[in-house]
Amino acid sequence: MRRKVIRPEEILETAGALVREEGLAACSMRGIASRLGVAVGTLYNYFPSRDLLLQELFKASWARTVEKVRTEAERDGDGRKRILSIARILLEDMWDRKGLGREVLGFRERMGDQGCAFDEIKEAVTAALARVLKDILPPGQAEDAPTLARWTLAVLLDTIIGDRPFGPREEELLLRLVP
Amino acid sequence: MRRKVIRPEEILETAGALVREEGLAACSMRGIASRLGVAVGTLYNYFPSRDLLLQELFKASWARTVEKVRTEAERDGDGRKRILSIARILLEDMWDRKGLGREVLGFRERMGDQGCAFDEIKEAVTAALARVLKDILPPGQAEDAPTLARWTLAVLLDTIIGDRPFGPREEELLLRLVP
Repeated sequence: MRRKVIRPEEILETAGALVREEGLAACSMRGIASRLGVAVGTLYNYFPSRDLLLQELFKASWARTVEKVRTEAERDGDGRKRILSIARILLEDMWDRKGLGREVLGFRERMGDQGCAFDEIKEAVTAALARVLKDILPPGQAEDAPTLARWTLAVLLDTIIGDRPFGPREEELLLRLVP
Repeated sequence: MRRKVIRPEEILETAGALVREEGLAACSMRGIASRLGVAVGTLYNYFPSRDLLLQELFKASWARTVEKVRTEAERDGDGRKRILSIARILLEDMWDRKGLGREVLGFRERMGDQGCAFDEIKEAVTAALARVLKDILPPGQAEDAPTLARWTLAVLLDTIIGDRPFGPREEELLLRLVP
């Protein structure tokens, strides 16, 4: 019997679907292998541990989120609406990753910062938010854009970590930061 | 020779002074013992590991911060000024703990959440901020106080973690959240 050939991307896609559909706990090496119809050992050829697999999943997933955020930031149209669209993209995608970020943050403490790319992600998102904020802020206040971008991300992270609502009222409150 | 008798509080005070003056790395069991003039073994009678000692130091230090924040929240006078005073207390005290919070967050991942009291601390601080915010907000908007209190804390944590400035301009931006 020939062994089924898989690519690492397929493994990550399957792992991502498992997290979204059944949660992080279901995303075991055994669970991924069974969904892919391969032996568990095959996964270990590509990812030496579940931690490393989840780390790559986290990076790949955030790369897609950052891409969406950038596209939204570069669109034309009302800056305030774009800020809220970016907020919604971030909240939805973070929600879809259901605890993956927290888990990976845990590895980082255990394993040292082996390229979790947290800082790069944060920088990319705040740069996109700052670009839009610069369009909205009055000319003399454009220099506040980076600070307000960081604060916007801090508020969204707090929302997702604390499992808090973020509805029309919260959107209105957030936009108060922009005069 | 009689062994020097010390209380656990003295150990924590000495450890706190070491962190403030020389940073977290200098706060080793050996370093604390040497400053106290006792044998390292004496410390281990009270704290089975450096992790547990730092955890207690973190809790004791935050207990003092929360006390200061509460006192400020209950004072009379301009609510906006009180919000900024609380912000300054939090930033200064977090700064004095120089990385202790991050280190303890690391243990928590390693050791499980053994009473690091993060949630209780967060709750106590946001409750105090919300109390003051309620005084400032227009009557119909008092229900926004808990959200704005959480956001204020999120912004301050982001400031301290990112080692960002928080001067008069940032204070002005933060107060925009209150109409």
